[in-house]
Amino acid sequence: MSSIKDVANLAGVAVGTVSRVINNSGSVKPATRKKVEKAIQELNYIPNEVARNFKMRKSKMVALLLPSIWHPFFSELAYYIEDELDREGFKLMLCNSGGKPEKELYYLDMLQQNKVAGIVGITYNDIENDVSNDIPIVSIDRHFNKKITCVTSDNYEGGRLALRELVKAGAKKMAFLGSVTSVFSETMNRREGFIHEAKTMGVDYVVYEKPDPVLDDDAYFDEFLDKYHDVDGIFAITDMFAAKYIDKAGKQGIRVPEDVKVIGYDGIQDHSYFHPILSTIRQPVEEMARMTIRLLYKKIEGETLDREVYRLPVIFRRGETT
Amino acid sequence: MSSIKDVANLAGVAVGTVSRVINNSGSVKPATRKKVEKAIQELNYIPNEVARNFKMRKSKMVALLLPSIWHPFFSELAYYIEDELDREGFKLMLCNSGGKPEKELYYLDMLQQNKVAGIVGITYNDIENDVSNDIPIVSIDRHFNKKITCVTSDNYEGGRLALRELVKAGAKKMAFLGSVTSVFSETMNRREGFIHEAKTMGVDYVVYEKPDPVLDDDAYFDEFLDKYHDVDGIFAITDMFAAKYIDKAGKQGIRVPEDVKVIGYDGIQDHSYFHPILSTIRQPVEEMARMTIRLLYKKIEGETLDREVYRLPVIFRRGETT
Repeated sequence: MSSIKDVANLAGVAVGTVSRVINNSGSVKPATRKKVEKAIQELNYIPNEVARNFKMRKSKMVALLLPSIWHPFFSELAYYIEDELDREGFKLMLCNSGGKPEKELYYLDMLQQNKVAGIVGITYNDIENDVSNDIPIVSIDRHFNKKITCVTSDNYEGGRLALRELVKAGAKKMAFLGSVTSVFSETMNRREGFIHEAKTMGVDYVVYEKPDPVLDDDAYFDEFLDKYHDVDGIFAITDMFAAKYIDKAGKQGIRVPEDVKVIGYDGIQDHSYFHPILSTIRQPVEEMARMTIRLLYKKIEGETLDREVYRLPVIFRRGETT
Repeated sequence: MSSIKDVANLAGVAVGTVSRVINNSGSVKPATRKKVEKAIQELNYIPNEVARNFKMRKSKMVALLLPSIWHPFFSELAYYIEDELDREGFKLMLCNSGGKPEKELYYLDMLQQNKVAGIVGITYNDIENDVSNDIPIVSIDRHFNKKITCVTSDNYEGGRLALRELVKAGAKKMAFLGSVTSVFSETMNRREGFIHEAKTMGVDYVVYEKPDPVLDDDAYFDEFLDKYHDVDGIFAITDMFAAKYIDKAGKQGIRVPEDVKVIGYDGIQDHSYFHPILSTIRQPVEEMARMTIRLLYKKIEGETLDREVYRLPVIFRRGETT
């Protein structure tokens, strides 16, 4: 009967490498892994019971942590993530982690126990101390301070684009409407790009923000409408913010786009049956989902990625609000 | 060697609590869980091998098969299903099976291999020969001819209610707009209830249906609008059908609700920012999701259920289209 040493000799690698392949732990280059797997097959090597148990635990499952699947942006994302995983026979585990850091920590624990092969996370909680770049996690939207690979749309360019489109539509006094998380989030770049472009073009603007999450919509929009009568161009941090503004403003007799032009961010409307159809900065959701999974596979295989943040280009999609 | 009692003593909890932590079953407060885990570590406690193996083989995973998570009705359903599963420490595996029977069969196979503990399925494929009442599957909406437990909204009463509401709103000539699947589906009861009530009340009506899925919306609605000029009350099989009708009719100058009253089914709009807000028969999505999971648990435990189809009451929610 062959031993692990025989496998190592035939593959021309160290015993430790064979062990890592069997246990699916640590990083092994794909080429090396292939060599080892070939040797295992040729020698008909059967790892001892303990090792086998480990191997059997090799998960083909990826966990997706979302604030809530019941949101059109996240459900579109989940749709494409599942589709991309399915191509390689991986399964999707879904978790609504919204506002529950302990749920996110639980999945990190599952990852450490090899019960899931990787995690895709849209998390707004501060779980930074528990994650590192070594483990197969890819974040979407949320750019951790620690070195977690992140796939996001080009939020900064999106902010610039929104400002230019508001100018094109004839607006003179701009406002950015948003909410701020306690930890840095990639979405903050929407505001930064907006400000940069306003300054560059010499356009008058204000930034109106409250802590995230905004729980009292009425108070949020009443204060804004009270304070800024002369604003005629709005870039909202998400489509939902844009839609809420339009609703509240309408109740005060403010017409969109006649009195105020409004641009959102996301592109949550996938058909034209409900109105207003928002003018928006459209995130490339399908591309983001597929790239996220392809990068995750690389991390699962132990590869080192060449970048930390992957930003995909956005487009302006004109609707009925500019 | 330490026993489970030693762990319980050190952690200051009951033996049952330690067991729940080890088996990850039932609810344990995060703080309690930490205490137990610390005690396990300190005592270097190892649960016995048999129990461990058993535990490892027993899946805590439930698969949810949906045509597409990227649909507001299904994403709301998935949200509550995950929430209910989480209460008992179960995880949700998500599969978009839309139009791919082989994907559904794959999950049935996983169930037979104990890789998932149960399946919740909204399937429109004819996979009837592969399922039986013995295995833990609960269907939603789709009532199999074979004995599969099904949780659904009261489609028949929903159809009756829609007809009565159209009459109340002043409509005289009614139409049911739908699509028909090749196998029996619970959703067909929406039409049956509608017809029953129209006959009972002596109201004039037509039924307009095409095979499911309807791929060419234009052809579908053009033919309907061409054929039935005198219809002034419409009950559409889903909210999306209702929304599409309103859009197409609007392009021909038909105003809703002035010229035609429209009622949909589902209740997909969870806020009032996009218009028209549909008058609709609202499915009790949260209750359906929670009941489905509770019935699934019973089937997983081997219990025999007292019924085959569980129908939950619907309500009429008035919007802007009646």
